[in-house]
Formats: sequence, structure tokens, C-alpha cells
Amino acid sequence: MRTEATGGSGHDLRHHGDAEVRDDGAALVDLAVNVRADTPPAWLREEIAGSLSSLAAYPDGRAARAAVAARHGLPVERVLLTAGAAEAFVLLARALKVRRPVVVHPQFTEPEAALRDAGHTVDRVLLREADGFRLDPAAVPEDADLVVIGNPTNPTSVLHPAEMLVRLARPGRTLVVDEAFMDAVPGEREALAGRTEVPGLVVLRSLTKTWGLAGLRIGYVLAAPETIAELERAQPLWPVSTPALAAARACVAPRALAEAGHAAHRIAGDRAHLVAGLAAFAARGVRVVEPAEGPFVLVRIPDAAEVRRRLRALGYAVRRGDTFPGLGADWVRVAVRDRSTANAFLKALSAALTPPAPPG
Amino acid sequence: MRTEATGGSGHDLRHHGDAEVRDDGAALVDLAVNVRADTPPAWLREEIAGSLSSLAAYPDGRAARAAVAARHGLPVERVLLTAGAAEAFVLLARALKVRRPVVVHPQFTEPEAALRDAGHTVDRVLLREADGFRLDPAAVPEDADLVVIGNPTNPTSVLHPAEMLVRLARPGRTLVVDEAFMDAVPGEREALAGRTEVPGLVVLRSLTKTWGLAGLRIGYVLAAPETIAELERAQPLWPVSTPALAAARACVAPRALAEAGHAAHRIAGDRAHLVAGLAAFAARGVRVVEPAEGPFVLVRIPDAAEVRRRLRALGYAVRRGDTFPGLGADWVRVAVRDRSTANAFLKALSAALTPPAPPG
Repeated sequence: MRTEATGGSGHDLRHHGDAEVRDDGAALVDLAVNVRADTPPAWLREEIAGSLSSLAAYPDGRAARAAVAARHGLPVERVLLTAGAAEAFVLLARALKVRRPVVVHPQFTEPEAALRDAGHTVDRVLLREADGFRLDPAAVPEDADLVVIGNPTNPTSVLHPAEMLVRLARPGRTLVVDEAFMDAVPGEREALAGRTEVPGLVVLRSLTKTWGLAGLRIGYVLAAPETIAELERAQPLWPVSTPALAAARACVAPRALAEAGHAAHRIAGDRAHLVAGLAAFAARGVRVVEPAEGPFVLVRIPDAAEVRRRLRALGYAVRRGDTFPGLGADWVRVAVRDRSTANAFLKALSAALTPPAPPG
Repeated sequence: MRTEATGGSGHDLRHHGDAEVRDDGAALVDLAVNVRADTPPAWLREEIAGSLSSLAAYPDGRAARAAVAARHGLPVERVLLTAGAAEAFVLLARALKVRRPVVVHPQFTEPEAALRDAGHTVDRVLLREADGFRLDPAAVPEDADLVVIGNPTNPTSVLHPAEMLVRLARPGRTLVVDEAFMDAVPGEREALAGRTEVPGLVVLRSLTKTWGLAGLRIGYVLAAPETIAELERAQPLWPVSTPALAAARACVAPRALAEAGHAAHRIAGDRAHLVAGLAAFAARGVRVVEPAEGPFVLVRIPDAAEVRRRLRALGYAVRRGDTFPGLGADWVRVAVRDRSTANAFLKALSAALTPPAPPG
């Protein structure tokens, strides 16, 4: 684990998995984007479609905000609905008074990109493969007044213990925990959402991944009322659309929470199946970061760029890892899908790992 | 016309017409919000509903951006899609280097609110009733490096000549012309959208009002490529949702432009009818700002607050005028609706202008 200042790292922080399935991607089996397959479910599409009849009115976010607050047992003053977690990162970067922001990598690159675009110099804590990409809280500089970490972390799939993250909190520091994938963890264990006693805690949640709403732009922030008010002042008027508000209400209803819980257990089983399949390639240098706790796994593969190219030729898209600070050319991220998709992918990977025989 | 610095003016810049029809507003005939009645049309709702099947994918704005560019005969580098004009105001306030911003009032208050929230001190040019709320370009301070004006202007309904606005442009100054209501003007005469030779010109457009998409959050900015790039860097990732992108494409198609053109002519006729009806109350002190060119009219009514209260009791919501800098307590804004709605409203107004007889 080490700390470095950004600049000249060469990572394309604005590369995202969706770019790997765009354009020619329609024909590919998508294991690059971390959105749950077969989503949004029909009942959710119907809820959203129902909202289209009131599009002429300006969005009124009050009911959705109250529903999200109730879901986490919080007062509405601790909740801010945003146009996806991406908007939340921009608000944090622009609205908070910050002198020394630190981002724990490898992780989703958008928080750092938003901080840089807002004019900040960002320090990085780089977690290492040798440590299983686990965090040592002592590695975070004491004078950091903004710390950003994902839990479970994209792309490492590491789930940090909640109490370890709490140790990062202190007066005068904003601790941002991106829980975009937490609802894919059975029981949401290690979640900090709803914890009001942790000073400076800001929890981000997304409805995009579990519910297949990437196209709708909806997420939310949980924080102290003063922080919420600061972020809200930096938002445009009517930041969240009426269909997105309808989706937010629907996705925090008891029925949806139960469905997400079932999905989390299914993902855990499917992930175990995928990880076991990948273990069969250990002799060819394939290594999975374990324990993986998110709906994706991080995999080290020798000559990964060439393997990715071959996988594409075989009809499979996986996410390149080299755009994540702290990861090199040998890494790919693979989304957890159902077992038959995983089996077919593993078969393709087996072929991709073996160079094709020369022609003739 | 005079210039003043903001602060202590007491205007609630964050008051918007939608607040006047919320809650108990469901039972009111809405002449407060400037969204065209009976919108979105069925064909547009269907286009939007069709996009719901691809919500699991992240939004891909390229096709919509190209369609908007083509509609104005511009290259895509001159177009930025935004989550409504409201997002554009926040981007302008936060992303551009500005030292002395000036807002021409009375107008939509959100540009000034966004500038203030971004830490700017905003100077105002106040147009006066005695001048018909028309602009004298000489009133804008020479050292203003950001000038914001609406055309046609909300709430005055004044349409400024395009060539007069061009005279406000100069090197080193960003001239923001909010054309949110321009597509309600027959032939879009006096439009600056598509004019690439005007230095520093930024044109804002909305699809909200004409198409009844206030709930969807979609608009766009037309400007020089460097300015577009600066604003884009300040946007969150995936700023516009998939349904909003579908709507944008649909609303700039030839069929939609033709429909908007027809609607603009119908609005002009309906407005003439409303203005003529209001003229009948001249003896009771009612004055309409003329010529009105937008889909609403600004009306001076003695004791307007009490008249608004009575109108609400009679089932009609109109927009208060006193939250607009430069207007006092005697002003209301009235949306142009079809003639039978206008006739019923005029009848209610007649009753509201005459105090009810004392009980007993």
C-alpha cells in the first residue's frame, strides 16, 4: 500500500465498461458492465411507464425522498436524491470545502475524475495485490479531509469491514463510502448506510446496478443534514426526472428489497461457480482476487489485452483493468452472470488463453 | 432601466410556478406553469415508452446530440445536451471563468440563483415597465464578462430583436441568450440559435415547455466548441437519461418541428384572444405588457396578491410576479391556454377583481 499524488499516471479515468460493449458490442455477451442481467424487471418497467403520463409537470421529489429515508430509518434531511451516483461525485467535488482529498485505489475512477475536474489535486492510496487489496487504515494520510472508498470495491470486489471504515472517520474529515454495490451483498453486511453516529460519513447508493436502471440516472446520498444541504445547493433545479423518482420509490419498497435480497444470494452462488471455474486455469497463470464479495470478480490473466481481444472475437466482452489506478495490463474485471453464461464464458476463456494454431 | 448589485433584494429566486399548483393545486386550472397544455402528445409518449426497454444500458447521447446539431445546422462540437436548462445554468455558473456577471431582469430567476450559489456577485440590469421592459444595450455595463438575457423573456413576454442582442456580444464576454420559449414564436424570428459568427454567444434551448417534458429534464446548449468542452467537463457522467435522449431525438425530427410550428401559430391566436379579454378590464386598472410574444403574458393588477387568492378560491392558479426582480406586488404572469379556458378564466378574473359583497 502506498500513497501517490495524481498526474502523469496515464490512466484513462474516464474509461467505463459501457464503452466496451458499445457499437460492435451488440453482438457480444456482456461481462464488462456491472448491471444485473434481465433488468429492469417487468413490474419495475410498468411503474416507470406509469409515470410517463405526468411528464408535463415538473418533478416533485418529496415522496421519493421520504421513501428512501424510511428505507434506511433516517429523517429526510439526511437524504439527497441525485441523477445517479455520478452526479453525487460532482456535487461532492464542487460543493464541499476540501483541501486534501484522498481516493483509495483501485476503485471506480469517477470520484477522482470529478475532483480533478473541480480543480483539486488528488492523493491516492494504492492498495496492493500482495495485501489482497485490503485496506490498512493507517495508510490514509492523517491530514486528508476527504477520503473516498468503495465498499464493496469496484473493481477488486473486496468488502471492507464496516468497523475498519469507521476508523477512517474523524472530526473535520468527510468520509465518502460508495456503497453502489452493497445491495448485491447478502444482508448488506458491512453497510454503513443509516449509521448517523459516524462523524463526516457520506454514503452513496445507486439503484442502477441491481435494478438495471443505468439509463435512468438515479441514486442517492446519505449524510448529515448540513452536508446534504450543501450538496443540494449545488444541484440544478429538478435534478432527478419524474420516471427516475418513480423508480426510486418502487425500488425501496418492501417487495423490491426482498427481491434484491434474493438476487444477492443468487449472485453469491453464481460468483462461487465462476470463481471455481476460473481456478481451473491457475496453471495458466489466472488468479482471482479473493474473497470476492461484489457482483463481479477481478482476475489477473497473463497477456490480458490479447486474451480480451480473443474473447471479443469469440463473442465475449470483459472489462479491461488497466484503466484503474493501481492495476496493470494483466487485469480484467468479469461480471457475475448465471451459471450457463459463466460456463460458456469459461469455455471461451479456455480457448482464448491458448493461442490459436498458426494458419496452414 | 438601471443596474444594481444583488443582495438584500428580498426576492425569492428559488420560487417557481410549479409550487403554485402543487399540493392543493390538483383541483386548480393551471395558468401558473408555462408548459403547453395536453402535452406530451401521444406519439411522443410512445417514443419515450419505447426507450424503457433499454434502461439497463448506460445512456449513449451521441445520436441525440447529432440530431440536435442537424436541426440547427451545426456540427456536434457546438451542441451539449443537458438535464434541462436548469443544469445548463449551473454549468455556466460553475465552469466558466467569470468575474463580472450581469443578468437582465425581470427574467427567469434560476440563472442568477445558480451564479450566486457558485459564489458570484451578480449585477442586475433592471428593465422598466415605462420602457415596455425593452432593452437598451447601452445599459449593460461595458466590463460585464457574462450577460444573461431571455428571448422571448419570461415573465415579460418581450421578444428582443436578434440584432439588438448581437450588439451585446464582444470578445471576452459570454452572452447567454435563454431561448427556452423561442419555439413558441412563429418562425422562431429573432432566434440566435445556429448563429456561429457572434463571439461568445451561448444559446440555451428547452424541450420542456412546448413538448410537456418538464418531468423528463432535457434541454441543450449551443455555443463555440471550446465553451461546449468546458461545460461538458463540469457535467456528471451520463448527464441525460435514456428516456430524455429518446425525447430529444423525437422532438427535433421534421414532424415535431412542423407540429411545434403549428402550435406557435395557435398560441399567437390564443394569446391575442387572452390579451383582448384582459383589455376589457383596463378601467379596473389591469394592464398587459405588450407586445407579448411568448406563451404567457405579464399583467399588472392592482392588489394582485388578493386577486390571486380569490382566483385560487375560484379554481384558477396564476403565477405571482413579485418574486421576479424588477417587479412588485402588482404583477402576475398568466399562461396562454385555449380560448374556452381563457374565457372561463376571464370570467373568474372579473369576479376576483370585484370584492365579494359582505355577508348578510
